Amino acid sequence: MRKIAVLGIGQTKVDEHWDKSLRELGGEAAFLAMQDAGMDKVDALYVGNMLSPMVSGQNQLGTFFSDWIGLWHQEAVKIEAACGSGSAAFRSALMAVASGDIESALVVGVEKMTDKAGKDVTAALATAADADYELEQGVSFVGINAMVMRRYMHEFGWKHEDFAPFSINAHANAMHNPHARLHEKVTVEKFEKSSMVATPINLLDASPVGDGAAAAIIVPAEKVLRQPKVIVAASAAATDTIGVHSRKDPMFLNAAYLSSKQAYAMAGLTPSDIDFFELHDAFSIMAALSLEASGFAERGQGVRLGLDNKIHPKGNLPICTRGGLKARGHPVGATGMYQIVEVVQQLRGECGATQVDGARVGMAQNIGGSGATIMTHILSVEGTK
Amino acid sequence: MRKIAVLGIGQTKVDEHWDKSLRELGGEAAFLAMQDAGMDKVDALYVGNMLSPMVSGQNQLGTFFSDWIGLWHQEAVKIEAACGSGSAAFRSALMAVASGDIESALVVGVEKMTDKAGKDVTAALATAADADYELEQGVSFVGINAMVMRRYMHEFGWKHEDFAPFSINAHANAMHNPHARLHEKVTVEKFEKSSMVATPINLLDASPVGDGAAAAIIVPAEKVLRQPKVIVAASAAATDTIGVHSRKDPMFLNAAYLSSKQAYAMAGLTPSDIDFFELHDAFSIMAALSLEASGFAERGQGVRLGLDNKIHPKGNLPICTRGGLKARGHPVGATGMYQIVEVVQQLRGECGATQVDGARVGMAQNIGGSGATIMTHILSVEGTK
Repeated sequence: MRKIAVLGIGQTKVDEHWDKSLRELGGEAAFLAMQDAGMDKVDALYVGNMLSPMVSGQNQLGTFFSDWIGLWHQEAVKIEAACGSGSAAFRSALMAVASGDIESALVVGVEKMTDKAGKDVTAALATAADADYELEQGVSFVGINAMVMRRYMHEFGWKHEDFAPFSINAHANAMHNPHARLHEKVTVEKFEKSSMVATPINLLDASPVGDGAAAAIIVPAEKVLRQPKVIVAASAAATDTIGVHSRKDPMFLNAAYLSSKQAYAMAGLTPSDIDFFELHDAFSIMAALSLEASGFAERGQGVRLGLDNKIHPKGNLPICTRGGLKARGHPVGATGMYQIVEVVQQLRGECGATQVDGARVGMAQNIGGSGATIMTHILSVEGTK
Repeated sequence: MRKIAVLGIGQTKVDEHWDKSLRELGGEAAFLAMQDAGMDKVDALYVGNMLSPMVSGQNQLGTFFSDWIGLWHQEAVKIEAACGSGSAAFRSALMAVASGDIESALVVGVEKMTDKAGKDVTAALATAADADYELEQGVSFVGINAMVMRRYMHEFGWKHEDFAPFSINAHANAMHNPHARLHEKVTVEKFEKSSMVATPINLLDASPVGDGAAAAIIVPAEKVLRQPKVIVAASAAATDTIGVHSRKDPMFLNAAYLSSKQAYAMAGLTPSDIDFFELHDAFSIMAALSLEASGFAERGQGVRLGLDNKIHPKGNLPICTRGGLKARGHPVGATGMYQIVEVVQQLRGECGATQVDGARVGMAQNIGGSGATIMTHILSVEGTK
């Protein structure tokens, strides 16, 4: 496949942006990416979004944004894969540039969530689950994840506080990220005392929603002079059953296993070559499961990486180096693009206090639904194996 | 770009399918396409859909369907571009196969619209327009098209009954299509007496909504033995402003002009090489505007092609040969895939009474919003110029 580089990136703070409309929010990230790339025109626009029909009464976000940001007449389309929409849009853009039909693409992940009441957003988020076989039973999205976490704790003998390092690390890293939603230190005590959401998931296990947008511009690698040149070493996607109840093993993210396996093969790498990993910690249990399925820990032992102090920026396997979903925030359809932007920031060495020393290869993994749709991308500095 | 063929097609009748769920409806078209292609597995699934989050409370339709139809673990994603979602999904699938990253794709356009009350569906359809600058003014989607039609009649001196041939032709052709929603002959008298929806658009100017799904399987052309071999000669997409009020000329479909021009160039063809044209006659005015922008009529003269009796299956430029949106029906996110399926049926010579003699090159044009997102595809029998 044609080699592709990420030339420009842009992002807004994840926040309650009541002063900005959907178009202003996405436009801001898009303009920043174009400025960073030094381009005022691209061949096509790919927008990742999940909730705008329900929250903003707006569909057709591709053209909605190509119009607003002045990419008049250019091809534009929206991609949706629940909370995996951002990286699904990134992957669609990669395929289009790789096909040779277009020479450049802007990808924008955008979500405006705080214009509606919390209960409406909870209902909208539930559309990621199976409406007929899960939602009809009255279970919420966090409820599904809570059942998985409960079973995992029972099966592998972990206590709730064993998950604290995921939350502590994410919040500590977010302190140094001006685009993060939460700037608040977490301790084991705070973690254990936090309000319960759906047992055993409490507020500090769960990522906060928010308004946000993140964007990137991709072009064929041979056209890029900028150094360091960040290339897409691998892109892979896989799916699982949409309902967790249909899986042989609800505690194994098979789509993470398959997409990461395929990504390693495409990049010619193994897990030990990955310098840092921006994973999808929508709930702390998902951090553990992603680490296991992606080859960084044995089954049931993902939690150990946190307890052994390996996941912070100076550890063996830094994760969520900009705060992750937990503390940077989880504007659902935008999250996958935040991960891509953050991987690029690390590879450019722009992360200050949470910079991973000598970062040359970074991985991002974005999940739609309860492990139903998973995209894994590996980015690297050109010249790295 | 890699040459791609359409190997299999499938479709359901457009109807009020109250006995079928969303998954059963889309699954039916998918299974038929797989059966027609003789394949029980593909590398990836692309789903075109507009309304399921609002009408069915279901997002993540890619994985929802890969799960249901047994494409376990395969990559799957949903594409949305309002009423242009079907062909936008088709184009995304083409890019992916063209990139070489995958070797086969199933594309399903699906829409379940009749499970909700009419007013709810009207509100859901309005999300194709600009929520901030059009819908806030209280205008409905048909209202926007009515203003364009009124202006066109005024500007070019046409009477309402001059549009009758579009409706009469579509309904006459649908009589021979078992998958069409309406099987009802239309005359000029009936056309003029039909109930008003939004002046000057009456019921027989407007396409009926409905539940429906249409699907196709694409693979690299060199792998296909089946004859006639239907190849994708061109795929192009363009956008316009999302709101009609922002356009210099609201009566010119600039995105149809641009995408058809690009498609002709890609295929090495001119409008005179097109044997038939499946256009997007959501309203009769749109049939006229599509013909003009795509190079088949001068400005303001699209209506003349109908009056001159050129658009029926034995005419110079057959359009809507299976009933078009007007009579086959317009299950919005599925429509683009119905058009692709119908072009393939014509090129295979499977259209009986409405077969276009010697059909070797067919064009499909699918529109999202009021001319905002437009995809043009040209399919041909391999060996044709």
